[in-house]
Amino acid sequence: MPELIAIDWGTSSFRAWLLGAGGAVLDEIPSGPGILSVPDGDFDAAFETALGHWLSANPDLPVIASGMITSRNGWVETPYLPLPLDARTLAHALTAHVTKRGRRVHFVTGAVRNPDHGLPDVMRGEETEIIGHLAASGAREGLFVLPGTHSKWARVEGGRLTGFNTCMTGEVFAILRDHSILGKLAGDGPLSPDAFLRGLETGRANGALLARIFSARSLALMDRLEGGEVADYLSGLLIGDEVAAALASARGAVTVIGRGDLAERYRVALSHAGAEAALAAPGMARAGLWEIAKLAGVIG
Amino acid sequence: MPELIAIDWGTSSFRAWLLGAGGAVLDEIPSGPGILSVPDGDFDAAFETALGHWLSANPDLPVIASGMITSRNGWVETPYLPLPLDARTLAHALTAHVTKRGRRVHFVTGAVRNPDHGLPDVMRGEETEIIGHLAASGAREGLFVLPGTHSKWARVEGGRLTGFNTCMTGEVFAILRDHSILGKLAGDGPLSPDAFLRGLETGRANGALLARIFSARSLALMDRLEGGEVADYLSGLLIGDEVAAALASARGAVTVIGRGDLAERYRVALSHAGAEAALAAPGMARAGLWEIAKLAGVIG
Repeated sequence: MPELIAIDWGTSSFRAWLLGAGGAVLDEIPSGPGILSVPDGDFDAAFETALGHWLSANPDLPVIASGMITSRNGWVETPYLPLPLDARTLAHALTAHVTKRGRRVHFVTGAVRNPDHGLPDVMRGEETEIIGHLAASGAREGLFVLPGTHSKWARVEGGRLTGFNTCMTGEVFAILRDHSILGKLAGDGPLSPDAFLRGLETGRANGALLARIFSARSLALMDRLEGGEVADYLSGLLIGDEVAAALASARGAVTVIGRGDLAERYRVALSHAGAEAALAAPGMARAGLWEIAKLAGVIG
Repeated sequence: MPELIAIDWGTSSFRAWLLGAGGAVLDEIPSGPGILSVPDGDFDAAFETALGHWLSANPDLPVIASGMITSRNGWVETPYLPLPLDARTLAHALTAHVTKRGRRVHFVTGAVRNPDHGLPDVMRGEETEIIGHLAASGAREGLFVLPGTHSKWARVEGGRLTGFNTCMTGEVFAILRDHSILGKLAGDGPLSPDAFLRGLETGRANGALLARIFSARSLALMDRLEGGEVADYLSGLLIGDEVAAALASARGAVTVIGRGDLAERYRVALSHAGAEAALAAPGMARAGLWEIAKLAGVIG
């Protein structure tokens, strides 16, 4: 028996699940249009196109969504919640939106740190993954990293999200590879774990990051790095710098919430830097959406 | 009486001078094709087009050139010289090249640090500017910064270049503004010295640079930075980080060798960080070419 439609709708990604008792996955839509790929910003139509068969087969099923879909460029912009926050805070702050065809969608909003003073920071979507991990694992404390275009480092204390920090590592890697002089010497090549490890070493070193990244070019010019290794070296360098800075102000084990090659790179980088690192179970966005829907009374 | 044709030929810039007794400027070509703008890499033709009138009017005048024109993508690739080096070392290492029309061009080569171990670094062109400054000012010691797409921090001891470090600050600024999400919130606006200073503050702060740069977006999202201020804030942030890292491992006054708005930004950033900062006189590439030509016996 379906009980909930849950959607993780990000800038460049879309995943949806049809969930049954206890949050069991009955069906899944593994991909769809990220918010930047929705023509004319017509999210209503994109929603109907992606989920139409589930919606018509289950006319009374509640729908919940999280991610950048609630940002300024998304469907419905919702205000950020200040820290600290937990699953219950997020559940109480759901924004209900009624689609053109009369369907109610419950939006989970994002979080803000330092809105008024110091350097602010924001997230939309990762808070739901963290909630999912806490619900699934029973953890109430910890340091978490969520790799991505913008990775998030999050601190949880007493079951509440108390702090976080965004690193633009993934995006900076991509633009350095695609648009800077470093990419000019980068050739295609198989994954090079050795070049990644060499990059991690340089990432941990002292000195300005803006100087250290130039070594991806100078090592190649000296024939000490092959073209096919430049990208993995640069990836290691940037992730190594990020991890070293995060560990300089934190202690204890780190849990990586993510999947695939990128999550594995962070796990390797953390171990390389001497930190205890674990990979969270997959499906944390889905678990978080279920937990928040439950606490909000959206599902019985 | 013309004694030398001197050329500073970089990746995206070209300047040439007709020099007389004592290095006095008799005539100048203020701009021309940088090496990336030379069609089909036909540097011989670009040389004749740019300098033809000087060459035919002065058929026996020696020609000297420095900059990226001696790089792999330039006219004649010359080997880097290891550190330490001085004007005499560069003068002894000139590479003579004869053009299709029989003109001899003397190329000043670049410098390399750590070619075989540790992180290597390279320069082509800046060594000539540093030599020019030493010759013009009589200085034999000092810490220098040469702002640019890639800025160079150089250490001179006993009249010799003993160390240097490349920072990709200028290029990273440009690609973040043009290709990253930070540019999306950046609007056009007049120069904002206040936003630049706010950026310098964030640039000096602790924590990963990859995290701090995200504040150019999050401050704008919180309406604490206007669109027209984003670029100057980001410029200050990156230069501030670079300057803080450089000063962490160096002491004493810093001389900025450069010109225009960018040199002024570095001078302000150095002063803001508490360092004594001075701007070198203009024309240092020209002065260096003259000095090296003199020591090499290219001119009487």
